[in-house]
Amino acid sequence: MNKFHFIGCNASYEEAKVVLFGAPFDSTVSFRPGTRFAPNRIRLDSEGLETYSPYQDEDLNNKKITDIGDIDIYYGNALNTLESVYTTTKKIIEDDKIPFMIGGEHLLSYASVSATYKHYKDLRVIHFDAHTDYRDQYFGETLSHATVIRRIHDEIGDKKIYSFGIRSGQKEEFLFAEEHQYIEKFDVITLDKVIEEVKNYPIYLTLDLDVLDPAYMSGTGTQDPGGLTFKELLNALLKLKVLNIVGLDIVELSPDYDTSGASTAAATKLIRELLLLTK
Amino acid sequence: MNKFHFIGCNASYEEAKVVLFGAPFDSTVSFRPGTRFAPNRIRLDSEGLETYSPYQDEDLNNKKITDIGDIDIYYGNALNTLESVYTTTKKIIEDDKIPFMIGGEHLLSYASVSATYKHYKDLRVIHFDAHTDYRDQYFGETLSHATVIRRIHDEIGDKKIYSFGIRSGQKEEFLFAEEHQYIEKFDVITLDKVIEEVKNYPIYLTLDLDVLDPAYMSGTGTQDPGGLTFKELLNALLKLKVLNIVGLDIVELSPDYDTSGASTAAATKLIRELLLLTK
Amino acid sequence: MNKFHFIGCNASYEEAKVVLFGAPFDSTVSFRPGTRFAPNRIRLDSEGLETYSPYQDEDLNNKKITDIGDIDIYYGNALNTLESVYTTTKKIIEDDKIPFMIGGEHLLSYASVSATYKHYKDLRVIHFDAHTDYRDQYFGETLSHATVIRRIHDEIGDKKIYSFGIRSGQKEEFLFAEEHQYIEKFDVITLDKVIEEVKNYPIYLTLDLDVLDPAYMSGTGTQDPGGLTFKELLNALLKLKVLNIVGLDIVELSPDYDTSGASTAAATKLIRELLLLTK
Amino acid sequence: MNKFHFIGCNASYEEAKVVLFGAPFDSTVSFRPGTRFAPNRIRLDSEGLETYSPYQDEDLNNKKITDIGDIDIYYGNALNTLESVYTTTKKIIEDDKIPFMIGGEHLLSYASVSATYKHYKDLRVIHFDAHTDYRDQYFGETLSHATVIRRIHDEIGDKKIYSFGIRSGQKEEFLFAEEHQYIEKFDVITLDKVIEEVKNYPIYLTLDLDVLDPAYMSGTGTQDPGGLTFKELLNALLKLKVLNIVGLDIVELSPDYDTSGASTAAATKLIRELLLLTK
Amino acid sequence: MNKFHFIGCNASYEEAKVVLFGAPFDSTVSFRPGTRFAPNRIRLDSEGLETYSPYQDEDLNNKKITDIGDIDIYYGNALNTLESVYTTTKKIIEDDKIPFMIGGEHLLSYASVSATYKHYKDLRVIHFDAHTDYRDQYFGETLSHATVIRRIHDEIGDKKIYSFGIRSGQKEEFLFAEEHQYIEKFDVITLDKVIEEVKNYPIYLTLDLDVLDPAYMSGTGTQDPGGLTFKELLNALLKLKVLNIVGLDIVELSPDYDTSGASTAAATKLIRELLLLTK
Amino acid sequence: MNKFHFIGCNASYEEAKVVLFGAPFDSTVSFRPGTRFAPNRIRLDSEGLETYSPYQDEDLNNKKITDIGDIDIYYGNALNTLESVYTTTKKIIEDDKIPFMIGGEHLLSYASVSATYKHYKDLRVIHFDAHTDYRDQYFGETLSHATVIRRIHDEIGDKKIYSFGIRSGQKEEFLFAEEHQYIEKFDVITLDKVIEEVKNYPIYLTLDLDVLDPAYMSGTGTQDPGGLTFKELLNALLKLKVLNIVGLDIVELSPDYDTSGASTAAATKLIRELLLLTK
Repeated sequence: MNKFHFIGCNASYEEAKVVLFGAPFDSTVSFRPGTRFAPNRIRLDSEGLETYSPYQDEDLNNKKITDIGDIDIYYGNALNTLESVYTTTKKIIEDDKIPFMIGGEHLLSYASVSATYKHYKDLRVIHFDAHTDYRDQYFGETLSHATVIRRIHDEIGDKKIYSFGIRSGQKEEFLFAEEHQYIEKFDVITLDKVIEEVKNYPIYLTLDLDVLDPAYMSGTGTQDPGGLTFKELLNALLKLKVLNIVGLDIVELSPDYDTSGASTAAATKLIRELLLLTK
Repeated sequence: MNKFHFIGCNASYEEAKVVLFGAPFDSTVSFRPGTRFAPNRIRLDSEGLETYSPYQDEDLNNKKITDIGDIDIYYGNALNTLESVYTTTKKIIEDDKIPFMIGGEHLLSYASVSATYKHYKDLRVIHFDAHTDYRDQYFGETLSHATVIRRIHDEIGDKKIYSFGIRSGQKEEFLFAEEHQYIEKFDVITLDKVIEEVKNYPIYLTLDLDVLDPAYMSGTGTQDPGGLTFKELLNALLKLKVLNIVGLDIVELSPDYDTSGASTAAATKLIRELLLLTK
Repeated sequence: MNKFHFIGCNASYEEAKVVLFGAPFDSTVSFRPGTRFAPNRIRLDSEGLETYSPYQDEDLNNKKITDIGDIDIYYGNALNTLESVYTTTKKIIEDDKIPFMIGGEHLLSYASVSATYKHYKDLRVIHFDAHTDYRDQYFGETLSHATVIRRIHDEIGDKKIYSFGIRSGQKEEFLFAEEHQYIEKFDVITLDKVIEEVKNYPIYLTLDLDVLDPAYMSGTGTQDPGGLTFKELLNALLKLKVLNIVGLDIVELSPDYDTSGASTAAATKLIRELLLLTK
Repeated sequence: MNKFHFIGCNASYEEAKVVLFGAPFDSTVSFRPGTRFAPNRIRLDSEGLETYSPYQDEDLNNKKITDIGDIDIYYGNALNTLESVYTTTKKIIEDDKIPFMIGGEHLLSYASVSATYKHYKDLRVIHFDAHTDYRDQYFGETLSHATVIRRIHDEIGDKKIYSFGIRSGQKEEFLFAEEHQYIEKFDVITLDKVIEEVKNYPIYLTLDLDVLDPAYMSGTGTQDPGGLTFKELLNALLKLKVLNIVGLDIVELSPDYDTSGASTAAATKLIRELLLLTK
Repeated sequence: MNKFHFIGCNASYEEAKVVLFGAPFDSTVSFRPGTRFAPNRIRLDSEGLETYSPYQDEDLNNKKITDIGDIDIYYGNALNTLESVYTTTKKIIEDDKIPFMIGGEHLLSYASVSATYKHYKDLRVIHFDAHTDYRDQYFGETLSHATVIRRIHDEIGDKKIYSFGIRSGQKEEFLFAEEHQYIEKFDVITLDKVIEEVKNYPIYLTLDLDVLDPAYMSGTGTQDPGGLTFKELLNALLKLKVLNIVGLDIVELSPDYDTSGASTAAATKLIRELLLLTK
Repeated sequence: MNKFHFIGCNASYEEAKVVLFGAPFDSTVSFRPGTRFAPNRIRLDSEGLETYSPYQDEDLNNKKITDIGDIDIYYGNALNTLESVYTTTKKIIEDDKIPFMIGGEHLLSYASVSATYKHYKDLRVIHFDAHTDYRDQYFGETLSHATVIRRIHDEIGDKKIYSFGIRSGQKEEFLFAEEHQYIEKFDVITLDKVIEEVKNYPIYLTLDLDVLDPAYMSGTGTQDPGGLTFKELLNALLKLKVLNIVGLDIVELSPDYDTSGASTAAATKLIRELLLLTK
């Protein structure tokens, strides 16, 4: 039988420190769907990647990581799917491991943050994204890719979410974020300051890949020009190594819009670096 | 202000005999989503089409047709979206006009058939498709693109649905269809016989474009090789001119998978011919 | 220096019986331009083709054919470009050779037919196309891809053009064609009869590749579903071997819409067979 | 009937301060045509954009803008098409509004600048482009995408055009531009100085999107690597807010080469920012 | 850990009757390489397929089939790779199972036929292909995708190979095939006769997917228009059910040229039908 | 007969100072093949380029350069192909000209460096690449795209190769490179220092285009995000003008993955600048 997992992630569940799982759901997306294909395409294309990172001088083969495959998904039913993410994440954390979700759409982060927060009550969330995702409703729905950070806010409260790279949203969303949480528009210049501020808290990292400029990430649902370069994002993420990351996700890769494969290659390399960031 | 409607469909609502509307919803799709982009791409590319059909020697400009644009859609919420289709269709029929829905995914036909059936209790449904769509549940959901014909069956009862071109499904679905309704596998050879049988009933026509072979319709969610050629399908549809069509839809075009534009061109031409079929 | 010519077409001009030339012009096209890239892409991809035809049991290497490259083109200036085609064709015919033009858009055939007609006053034209191309004006222009057959009609008179495969146009165009020339809608069934009728005349063959169904020729400007299969077209063309072909062209390949290369491969193979048809 | 206009541009003509119109013409292009599809694709994809700009803290909904759709175009006839642009622009300016043209090819700017210049005799032109466009003739034609700035020079005279980002052309063109107008090669470093110089003049802004590097704008006719990043261009444009812009255009998006949609998204976002720049 | 195998092929090796394996090698290809990506893309996309065939009224879940993944491949080294195919095939046959290879390029069939022939000395080979593949050398190499049938001929001798659908090759190749083996040009009309002739022999089936017309199989290295439709090929293959198939392969799918996914869907469905053909 | 050469490279061999040749071989590539199409696509698209460089204020038309077309290639046979490159390069150098190879895959540089080294025993190699290419074996092969720099090391010895931009490889490769040669990870910051060091030696420049970020070069076999921008690479190359370049190559463009044409445009422009660098 073929091995089929992200490269270098072949520990047993028992010995693993980090647990990778796919959540191929994209039903609430309003513009271009297709992120459901991300987990398997990422696994397939991870073959083209080295397990060694010259950035961190570390190798996936020296870490204990398992890839448990994709969880159950209910197309067209956000509630059941969120439940599935929640249950999976909760189990991993209770087993004293770090959950790493590969989306799928951003709404799913609501469930994984929520399960992480149940365990770590002083959780802080670091959020990279092009979009505020702070709407209260979206086309009448409260559970949507465009409301996910607002829902997380509802759950974990004020002044615990730090958003970077944001360059799109309604005026009200920006105002809400500025008042209730932390937001840096367009860039990641203030990241050092934030790291200093949260360094003693458990951290959940949610990375919406559209924070990258479409030049570097065309394979995503809602492209927003004016984003980070790959190097800018990678350098920002490498700074997080000092933090205590207890959960993380990477969402919104849409492989069928990635005609050249470059977006999938970017996602794959970022996953390697994020895996090597964890302790 | 730009005119933006399917070519030749610029009657006022009041004078119109046929009412075209778009329903850009695809959230329950399990394989490749993207049919939500169909209505507007079809309108845009219809510019490349003549209004005159040499097949029927008729011209759209001589018919009374209106294109009312897209109805309200709730991404990730099938129930609300079906309600929206239902309400629209019901209104059009009550106004003594023929509803023509451009999908979106096939599940939507459940709502439009249902609204049509409310008015025409002896309705018969003619169904072109690659897939049986006769599942009772799909990944635990009863409302799904894969259950749509089963739901219509539940609503309108035995021996009223005639399916053609079917070449994919579970064994149980084929058995169910054969026992409770009418099904021709792979082809449209028995269409003449069926036309004879239903010629005195009001007809709802639901056309899932994947009944075409992927050579002719690659821009669809679930391609199934071994389908009809465009000519075979067109000739079959032209035979329906003798029938009393009271509602119709064309679903499952997924333009972002139509890299050459050929699938959109096919859908566009079929819509012209279907519009000219109505009385 | 690289050889760069259609495979097997490396005779000197002096010894050549057939002279291939490219005319990469597409400025009057109203829908999707891009046929200007056809001649060079055809030359490049002809490498993948055998010089031997199992259909005719003949080999390009045994014929005397030259490829003189592309003629001068004036983008945005149809008149100057037609002049360029005219001059080239005239010279080739005066040198007692057969001109074979690779377009470029269909309008160009007006110039090459015209030059051929100057020399062969009893010329007959065989025309394969999806579109009538019989408009008198198109968006106010008399020289357009949509008026080309009408212009040829103006030049050579009634009952000399035989059109096949036509499936799109305005009603007036069909009526005009039926009254003044010969037209078979949709198909090539009556070709044998026509061959019988024209067998003693010099023949100009103009092949608009969109006569093929988009399944076989997606890489063209205005796709029109319901066309010929490749086999149907090839078999029709092979029947022309009994005729005295004195000039020919193949137009409307648009390589940038041919994402898989299949349309270019079809054009390339048809050119080989047409070259082997000539005497 | 469907609304179909650029997002947020639904004022009536009477109340509008800015008038958007499409000019889908590309017949003089020598390399890759297809910009004719830009206006409608931009309108369609503008749905994915917010009306609020976090860069300027302004919202399209608070401006008075109308989108009057596409003007009449004559494929293959540059003269008639330029006349159409000229007439439209002239009318808008006489109605005391700001014309904003979405191309189409760059040649069209000749007509819109010309009509603007008729009204504003001390007009200055700010020009972003990869190419000099300063040829006197191009393949024998004086009216061509490659001669447009030279024609504008002929019309409005010396020292009134300021070109930025230029990185391709013949040596003679660079010499001419340096002698008769203002040109910054490769970059926009001297923009502040130029703004200071022209701040008391009415300004026409012509933005050829190929000034962007192909990484950010692959969907254009003649890609020229080594261009601006999106952020560099956006920041440059935002500086123009202090100026009195009386006319503007954005040209050379070619959507069929934009397989990922990123180029159209970039064009769409730039149009929003440019609209919000106007007074 | 994720399951990753062709749908319905999850028997253990011990219980399996048929053993599927991938051979992702394409180094000798002269035109468009890329068939190395076929086995994994086929496994991934097989998710979209039903395990039930309405053509044969059989279900993969009722057969004993295993998918052992991909064998070792040596890029740029045809000899070592052929050795790897040979060893794998030999082992499977010695274990009294049927080998089913998914290529990769056609040259690999030489090794699998050879290993099968070692065991079944009266083996007959049925061969579907667009190309003769009967060259003795190709660009100086004796081991090449273009020489594979000639090499098989060298190994198993005269009058044992039956080729169908062939439409491309050098004249010498056609002559050789006609003299030493069996060849039907262009079509599969004589298949019934051949089945009658070979029905008492063990059969190896080698299916080069380019026997299909590019309309149905654009995702292959050397497209050759004028091929079989999917239905024609499927119907031909279903006839083989009466034979004693002891080994088989399907080669030359090149997924990166399959922009719409239709070719992969065709290959996937053919594999299901071929698996259900075996006893 | 058509001219077919890189733009501006039409000197005779005798008068030429620089000799361009294509080497369309890619058989040892392990991820995505297709670089074999690079030389001809580059020649074709070079038409869209000016011969004049505003960066160097020089024109190809003022240099003596010839393009001798593609050399003989043996698909699937690395040894014979390397021999072909070796012989060609050797001849050019013995004729006192500068060889400029357009790949094809990187392995080929082994042969061209080797031939150059035969003549220039104090040769230094400057190497831009994303990958170390320092493996001793790759899947058991010693001659592979992934071993090329190691093979060159074996040939020319320690401390003669200077690698820049490297961001992928095994830990052992980085260690080897650091010990035996010169390597700058990720960037080109130390290039000035290196230029100073090698300025009195003959230089061979080998440019693997994947040193560029995939945003700028998606059309390559193994994309590695985090690379140079086009401007960064161009500026680095322009610095080499002070050196005595005696041989050079540009490898790993894979045009079929370059859906927008931007990668080919980048390669083409880089070739122009490199040609103008030579003396």
